[in-house]
Amino acid sequence: MTIGSGRILELIESGHTMETTKYVYRFGKLTDGNRTMRELIGGKGANLAEMCNIGIPVPSGFTISTEACRYTIDNNMVWPEDLFDQILEGVHHLEKETGSKFGDPVNPLLVSVRSGAAVSMPGMMDTILNLGINDNVVEALIKKTGNERFVYDSYRRFIDMFGDVVMGVSHEHFEEAIEKLKKEVMVTADLELTAEQLKVLTDRYKAIYRKHTGHMFPEDPIEQLKFAINAVFSSWNSARAIKYREISHIVGLVGTGVNVQAMVYGNMGENSATGVCFTRNPSTGAHELYGEYLINAQGEDVVAGIRTPEPISEMRKEMPNVYDELFRLTSKLEAHYKNMQDIEFTIQEGKLYILQTRNGKRTGSAAVKIAVDLVNQDIITKEDAIVNLVDPEHIEQLLHPQFNTEDIVKRDIVAHGLPASPGAAVGRVVFTSKKAEQAAENGEMVILVRIETSPEDVGGMSSAEGILTSRGGMTSHAAVVARGWGKPCVAGCSDIVINYASKTFTNGEVTVKEGDWISIDGTRGIVMTGQHEMHPPILSEEYETFMRWVGNFESMQVRANAETPEDAALSRNLGANGIGLARTEHMFFKDDRIVAMRRMIISETEEERAHALSFLLPYQKDDFKGIFKEMNGLPVTVRLLDPPLHEFLPHTPKEITDVAAQLEISEERLIRKVNALREFNPMLGHRGCRLGITHPEITEMQTRAILEAAIELKWEGIIAKPEIMIPLVGSVREFVNQRRVIEQTAETVFGELNDRIDFKIGTMIEVPRAALAANKIAAEAEFFSFGTNDLTQMTLGYSRDDASKFIPYYLDEGILKDDPFQTLDTEGVGELVHMGTELGRAVNADLKVGICGEHGGDPASIDFCYKLGMNYVSCSPYRVPIAHLAIAQSVIRNRSVETELI
Amino acid sequence: MTIGSGRILELIESGHTMETTKYVYRFGKLTDGNRTMRELIGGKGANLAEMCNIGIPVPSGFTISTEACRYTIDNNMVWPEDLFDQILEGVHHLEKETGSKFGDPVNPLLVSVRSGAAVSMPGMMDTILNLGINDNVVEALIKKTGNERFVYDSYRRFIDMFGDVVMGVSHEHFEEAIEKLKKEVMVTADLELTAEQLKVLTDRYKAIYRKHTGHMFPEDPIEQLKFAINAVFSSWNSARAIKYREISHIVGLVGTGVNVQAMVYGNMGENSATGVCFTRNPSTGAHELYGEYLINAQGEDVVAGIRTPEPISEMRKEMPNVYDELFRLTSKLEAHYKNMQDIEFTIQEGKLYILQTRNGKRTGSAAVKIAVDLVNQDIITKEDAIVNLVDPEHIEQLLHPQFNTEDIVKRDIVAHGLPASPGAAVGRVVFTSKKAEQAAENGEMVILVRIETSPEDVGGMSSAEGILTSRGGMTSHAAVVARGWGKPCVAGCSDIVINYASKTFTNGEVTVKEGDWISIDGTRGIVMTGQHEMHPPILSEEYETFMRWVGNFESMQVRANAETPEDAALSRNLGANGIGLARTEHMFFKDDRIVAMRRMIISETEEERAHALSFLLPYQKDDFKGIFKEMNGLPVTVRLLDPPLHEFLPHTPKEITDVAAQLEISEERLIRKVNALREFNPMLGHRGCRLGITHPEITEMQTRAILEAAIELKWEGIIAKPEIMIPLVGSVREFVNQRRVIEQTAETVFGELNDRIDFKIGTMIEVPRAALAANKIAAEAEFFSFGTNDLTQMTLGYSRDDASKFIPYYLDEGILKDDPFQTLDTEGVGELVHMGTELGRAVNADLKVGICGEHGGDPASIDFCYKLGMNYVSCSPYRVPIAHLAIAQSVIRNRSVETELI
Repeated sequence: MTIGSGRILELIESGHTMETTKYVYRFGKLTDGNRTMRELIGGKGANLAEMCNIGIPVPSGFTISTEACRYTIDNNMVWPEDLFDQILEGVHHLEKETGSKFGDPVNPLLVSVRSGAAVSMPGMMDTILNLGINDNVVEALIKKTGNERFVYDSYRRFIDMFGDVVMGVSHEHFEEAIEKLKKEVMVTADLELTAEQLKVLTDRYKAIYRKHTGHMFPEDPIEQLKFAINAVFSSWNSARAIKYREISHIVGLVGTGVNVQAMVYGNMGENSATGVCFTRNPSTGAHELYGEYLINAQGEDVVAGIRTPEPISEMRKEMPNVYDELFRLTSKLEAHYKNMQDIEFTIQEGKLYILQTRNGKRTGSAAVKIAVDLVNQDIITKEDAIVNLVDPEHIEQLLHPQFNTEDIVKRDIVAHGLPASPGAAVGRVVFTSKKAEQAAENGEMVILVRIETSPEDVGGMSSAEGILTSRGGMTSHAAVVARGWGKPCVAGCSDIVINYASKTFTNGEVTVKEGDWISIDGTRGIVMTGQHEMHPPILSEEYETFMRWVGNFESMQVRANAETPEDAALSRNLGANGIGLARTEHMFFKDDRIVAMRRMIISETEEERAHALSFLLPYQKDDFKGIFKEMNGLPVTVRLLDPPLHEFLPHTPKEITDVAAQLEISEERLIRKVNALREFNPMLGHRGCRLGITHPEITEMQTRAILEAAIELKWEGIIAKPEIMIPLVGSVREFVNQRRVIEQTAETVFGELNDRIDFKIGTMIEVPRAALAANKIAAEAEFFSFGTNDLTQMTLGYSRDDASKFIPYYLDEGILKDDPFQTLDTEGVGELVHMGTELGRAVNADLKVGICGEHGGDPASIDFCYKLGMNYVSCSPYRVPIAHLAIAQSVIRNRSVETELI
Repeated sequence: MTIGSGRILELIESGHTMETTKYVYRFGKLTDGNRTMRELIGGKGANLAEMCNIGIPVPSGFTISTEACRYTIDNNMVWPEDLFDQILEGVHHLEKETGSKFGDPVNPLLVSVRSGAAVSMPGMMDTILNLGINDNVVEALIKKTGNERFVYDSYRRFIDMFGDVVMGVSHEHFEEAIEKLKKEVMVTADLELTAEQLKVLTDRYKAIYRKHTGHMFPEDPIEQLKFAINAVFSSWNSARAIKYREISHIVGLVGTGVNVQAMVYGNMGENSATGVCFTRNPSTGAHELYGEYLINAQGEDVVAGIRTPEPISEMRKEMPNVYDELFRLTSKLEAHYKNMQDIEFTIQEGKLYILQTRNGKRTGSAAVKIAVDLVNQDIITKEDAIVNLVDPEHIEQLLHPQFNTEDIVKRDIVAHGLPASPGAAVGRVVFTSKKAEQAAENGEMVILVRIETSPEDVGGMSSAEGILTSRGGMTSHAAVVARGWGKPCVAGCSDIVINYASKTFTNGEVTVKEGDWISIDGTRGIVMTGQHEMHPPILSEEYETFMRWVGNFESMQVRANAETPEDAALSRNLGANGIGLARTEHMFFKDDRIVAMRRMIISETEEERAHALSFLLPYQKDDFKGIFKEMNGLPVTVRLLDPPLHEFLPHTPKEITDVAAQLEISEERLIRKVNALREFNPMLGHRGCRLGITHPEITEMQTRAILEAAIELKWEGIIAKPEIMIPLVGSVREFVNQRRVIEQTAETVFGELNDRIDFKIGTMIEVPRAALAANKIAAEAEFFSFGTNDLTQMTLGYSRDDASKFIPYYLDEGILKDDPFQTLDTEGVGELVHMGTELGRAVNADLKVGICGEHGGDPASIDFCYKLGMNYVSCSPYRVPIAHLAIAQSVIRNRSVETELI
């Protein structure tokens, strides 16, 4: 075994020779560790040491290193030679700093024992409090606290905890004993037991302990400590801990640290207290101490709800000195950690101890305000503000109405589903798109509830306040469309069963009828009965400032996925640098276009088809004009028709009857066409450029619409920059086929209008083969846009409409780390994106490369795209600011990596 | 421009200095070219020169090089400086060798002009015959032939051909003229026109020529020749030729050669004749001249059917000397080309000329016999026999009954479909599996006709003589199952419409009812009405010899895809080295297993499910025992359950009613389950290892069945070598999850039975991601089997059940070169196979790698697998011998490449 030079240096610096390894790190007035030593002494140990180093009053203690844990586990629970001595030294340190002693009949030392690995990890041993208590110590404690009941309650709790957690004596046995006692003395609540009765209980607990362990309860505190430390060590390899590490993909850690720390008490009289506080208001971001405290109490009292805590502002009046000290210390911590802190503290007989500090959770608006304020106070840099202070989720929150947190009432929650599109919505339940549209016309607010949605539902979806589906994942039709429109959506809500016939849905207990009010929270994936209160999005001055800073760090553009003038305008307002994906299929569902579309599909001759298409042309042209106008001067990528034609045809017998009548053809003929177009796997069917190749007249019509629109706008002084994108290309031959059709049509149009414009022709890379053959395709294409939705479906073989049957299970079991439809699977799909980009750029240095799947709005995926050197990401309008932030974060993070390397 | 040293050498050898490029290559007694010069003088030119070189009497001529063509095209139809002079030299050579002269009034030279590029290429200029004819020459010819009618007919044909082909005067104009003349003289057939009338027609043709070209018909033969040569040059870039090269992916050729050759005539009297012959019998392979000839005739006479030709054996009696000469020359050609030859010849006034020789087409049994005979005659080596004399299709033919070629009657053909599984079948039409099974029980022969088949049809499919479907591609369910069983199948026959209700199918003209006899030819994809005669498969002694030779060259194993004891036995008989893919899903459809399977699926508790599975266990065990027994000592790869569960559930309302009754559950519950399991894209759904992961009890049951079977057989002295294959793995975590279940089950079984066996655990690589992450998976797996069916579907994004809507179009348009489900798409899917193999072997040198998609039986794909260094290919039983041949061919071909490189 070799020891790295860094490790040797550390050993030397810490005053040890190479013969003895240092296992115990003190903290308090004397401190051995610091925040950089997470690997060695765990996160909790490093944090406690760090606070001590900067002069924060923390109860003294010591941390046993993760290496001691590793050694002990590897050596069949035998400690390393020197460990016991070092622990004794640690105890000595503790005794010296606290002026108390283990087992002392006057001033006994009590400690807590906690596990703490380099990363936070549930599943390991729980906290043991009050270790050191025994029959002698009890007397001293009663004297000190004057509270015999409290002391015996602590003692019996310690035996229970120690027996259960350390020795594996089931907590049930202790529970049985207390229940029996309560029956005997005829009380119902634990709190009604007197000090004397608790003393009896303590003895009974000891007997239980003896019966189940075969030995007496250890009165010797050092003995107790040895057992407790071993229990922490062992818990590293508990089934739960191993499972957790597996699921969370935590690897490379050696073991857990053990923190032994002096107990302090907030219940030692009126000059004692316990509390929690934030350094700033976590809801608004206002610069004020925010929190609550309780005089003469322990944390447990707060949790048990026996007494109501006071707001921290009261402390200013009641304990002005301590309040000032608290303010001073918490400000110091905030400045040190360069972030708003969430702090636990205890006041023992007038002395303030800080027990824990961590970055505080906050709302989106608070996050932005705090970030901007901290920069203005010179506590952090703009880079810090962007990278560490504001999460993409914070920005997301800002852009949508939200329920007030306090208004999410548990008993009203009828179901949980996927948080498919953020924001809050309230409305009456409707089950059909038609009803939703009628309701919207009457000015009513509705929530559209469907088993799943299809393109024919877009009218109703657009009329509804929000959408709730019982099937489909984060990238189901409902989810994608809703996110695109910034409309709240809870999808794949399998807690409920929808019955269209009876116009109800139920979770098995509560049944909701059409017309009932419900509230859905697309941010959290919650469905509630009734009308809950919301607050509208707030884009503060600080938000503007913050986003301006963000803009200064960007090196990649952000485009929007938008297909209407309204969405285009919204995207531009939210900072989009262009449109990266304008789908054209939804344009065919509106009004009587669908009739023309269907006429085109059922055509039996090319003339019939051309005639139907000529009817669609003016509509398409108007669509494009509207979008180009809004994006004046910015590029707009238009994707040619993508979905299989059967999506435009009716399916139920009634629809077929109606449509046949409308088209003036026999039902039989329509049914024949519907059947002929039916597909087993539409995702892998006759769609994308395959349609354009077998039906070139569709490509011609769309090209004509795009270019005529652009030229006519040019005459009005508006600059359209169309980029025509060919979908689902798998081989260069497909691309060349469609490029020729586009180019020929362009020349025809330019000739007819006697004018021309510049435009680009590129392709989606969304079929795995396209990435593998990207060098050939790039030789012919001007841009690539990675369609990572479909690329994910095909590379992983997951149908996004069906995978909800196993993805949740895969996430639970740790087979998947993230939903690959939300966060790019970098190992698989990412490898194809990487290959596609490299191969493409190798033959065409000017190739513009972007991404337009849902991943274009996902920060982790954006970082991946940034590192690949893409030119842009494209995402739904409401994710544009988020993408901007994510890019700036990537730029800054990668810059500091580079700096470190220098 | 640099000239390679080889080119210089050639120029020097051919007696030219570097200043003049040689464009004209003579053949005849003096010959400049040879067979290696295809690139320079085209295939036809090289072949004519070669024959001359070995002393075969070929009418003299010369070839203008492809470089002359290239120069002329590049220079706006201006010839290279020296070309005209060289052509004149060529004409001089011709005149000298034939003793005739262009335009000579006594002995005029007439020539044919033909195009000929390095590879055969339709779309270029047709043949021009009798060039050199004019008013003067006509007289000489009449004298020579004594047949005025023939001469004028030739003259007017020449003007027509020259006008049409060379000058672009539409053939219609000439047709109009002849029709008009026939009306005038009141005859209906061309043949009824007299010499005099044809003379009139000749004049009228000249007038038409003049009218449409603006100049007189060129009487000067040299003038005619210049025009004709230019027409050949130009035809290289005709739209048709360009299209053909595009579709056939012919690139890198410079242009076409032009062959100018003296005409010979078989109609110059009773000592003249024309004929064709094979050097061996193309049906049986017997060593005898086989063909036919016609005395005093031209080729046209045979084609026109005016006279019936005699078998070549008659010639022996009628023209014994010429016959001997013919036998000598054709034997020489066969020995020279080391292959059975198909030869055209003409006898002009007792002198035999060979006009063309090429390798002759032959039946499968002839191919094998000829190959073996030629080796035994020391004409070719065994390597030649394997690589050049027998095609995989020949072997395929041998293994199935076939219709006698003469029994395929055009008027009986009602439809063409895909040749999905080779062989001939005759039976009465049935439209349901049930009817097929009943008929089989009654000993009746039936053809099962379905729109498409599903796993529930396997009973009927197995009872039928053959299968006909109107939907689905070469890898549809029907096609795959049928090929697996060697049962003839015509699939995707979209010419017909099937009506289950009326129990008929129709092609729009002919309607076939249930019970009618039909004959299907799965080798050709033909459906005929009535009963046609078949001959059974013949595995001759020569076949055994040939396959033994093949076996000696192999370096890769051939396994079979087989899932029943019968198929296993068949595979072994056909030479399989093991089973590479035993699917297990079909085992669940038989008898009452399907009931247990359905019980398992509708289970709501784990106990219910385990109970249902325990019912299936003994069946599975028996299945595996049967297979292992047949494969005693050879490896058997068993794939765990793959298809989505909904495939096992009923779909129509009636089936649902029946099944609900059978399972004793409410219809509602069954419908709920059916709906819950329904998938949008089953190909990308909840199947493969995803099932095994969410339902580990299925994996446990299957593992138990495999291993219990193997151990119980071990006790009987039979060696089972199971390899358990986990399907649809996309990430190593999936693999590890399932491997653990298998290993744990194995230990349990081994413990219970107190015995153990060796087995392997590996995976299908069929999801693109698996290939990309193969390094991680290979670290855990013992073998990879590339499932190229699904890998093709996902890499290309083609659903094999739906792609028949656009694949034929893609093939027609040249967007696809081959159907990727038949021949591996090496650029895309192959790249993943390549990556997967390389990445896998890099971390696990012992990794066994094979392929088990349909491509495992496709020669081109096998060559690809051989070059990647795979350990085995696996294919359907009847393709096992084909795969053996393909491997031997790959080995030999690659060996000679290596030799060449040395």
